[in-house]
Amino acid sequence: MQDKDMLIKRLNRIEGQVKGIQKMIDEERYCIDILTQISAIRSAINKVGSIILENHIKGCVVNSIKEDNSEESIAELMKTIDKFTK
Amino acid sequence: MQDKDMLIKRLNRIEGQVKGIQKMIDEERYCIDILTQISAIRSAINKVGSIILENHIKGCVVNSIKEDNSEESIAELMKTIDKFTK
Amino acid sequence: MQDKDMLIKRLNRIEGQVKGIQKMIDEERYCIDILTQISAIRSAINKVGSIILENHIKGCVVNSIKEDNSEESIAELMKTIDKFTK
Amino acid sequence: MQDKDMLIKRLNRIEGQVKGIQKMIDEERYCIDILTQISAIRSAINKVGSIILENHIKGCVVNSIKEDNSEESIAELMKTIDKFTK
Repeated sequence: MQDKDMLIKRLNRIEGQVKGIQKMIDEERYCIDILTQISAIRSAINKVGSIILENHIKGCVVNSIKEDNSEESIAELMKTIDKFTK
Repeated sequence: MQDKDMLIKRLNRIEGQVKGIQKMIDEERYCIDILTQISAIRSAINKVGSIILENHIKGCVVNSIKEDNSEESIAELMKTIDKFTK
Repeated sequence: MQDKDMLIKRLNRIEGQVKGIQKMIDEERYCIDILTQISAIRSAINKVGSIILENHIKGCVVNSIKEDNSEESIAELMKTIDKFTK
Repeated sequence: MQDKDMLIKRLNRIEGQVKGIQKMIDEERYCIDILTQISAIRSAINKVGSIILENHIKGCVVNSIKEDNSEESIAELMKTIDKFTK
């Protein structure tokens, strides 16, 4: 995957954010502040998902189309996109 | 917070899931399988958010209403909910 | 409901947007432009949902709390919020 | 567009659902019931978006890839998907 190092770094940061929320809960911090942090993790996770999706389209999906064999790969792609747009 | 221990456990599991995705990326696993795992983290994070929101409503919001001082706490609540329903 | 007239107006506008998309599809307009309009309807619908939710909290939920009878109304509220944050 | 008639029908149904919500608001029906209907419209709109996206990928994106000219069309696709996964 092209963006491998960048994705690992982003996931390291998300891991730190998850630990940060555990600390906030442990210290009984104000719920609204915790929820703001959780919303930030959601955005960070969505961004990682978006980058992997782009890599997938540029790699596997493009190849399947060039080999005139795209039906299955597009069906699989749509099923995956639908999981993120509920 | 009432559900403190349960939340810490859920966040531990999410941390494990984030590490799992780093491993999948490192091993260049199939993108669609990685995206399925990312969608699972999203659900797990949403669940944590929902539990904290419920705690917040049952605690802070209920108290502010009983003290006839709910305007600000409801405005803040709506702003937070809106972050999660974009 | 306090915001009744404003909500009816917003829903009129959404109805117009839905008709607009039908026209775009009928005229075989560029898919990406149609999807941008669909994303705008989604935001408009979410806004209507958010206003109704706020009315509900300020009305029913506040009353149930003042009558010390909030358990059921908060459980119902959380179930509804969860529908919008998947 | 391949799924044109089906999409027009789905949008007709959504228009009916929007009118239904106006009626519910006008009749001051229970907020939670209105919100359940709004969540149903959201799902219906997302489904329409998903079908148009699939048509777009199978048409424009596939063609751009076959013509070795996919960079712009994939960038545009990702921007559109991101609008729906916030």
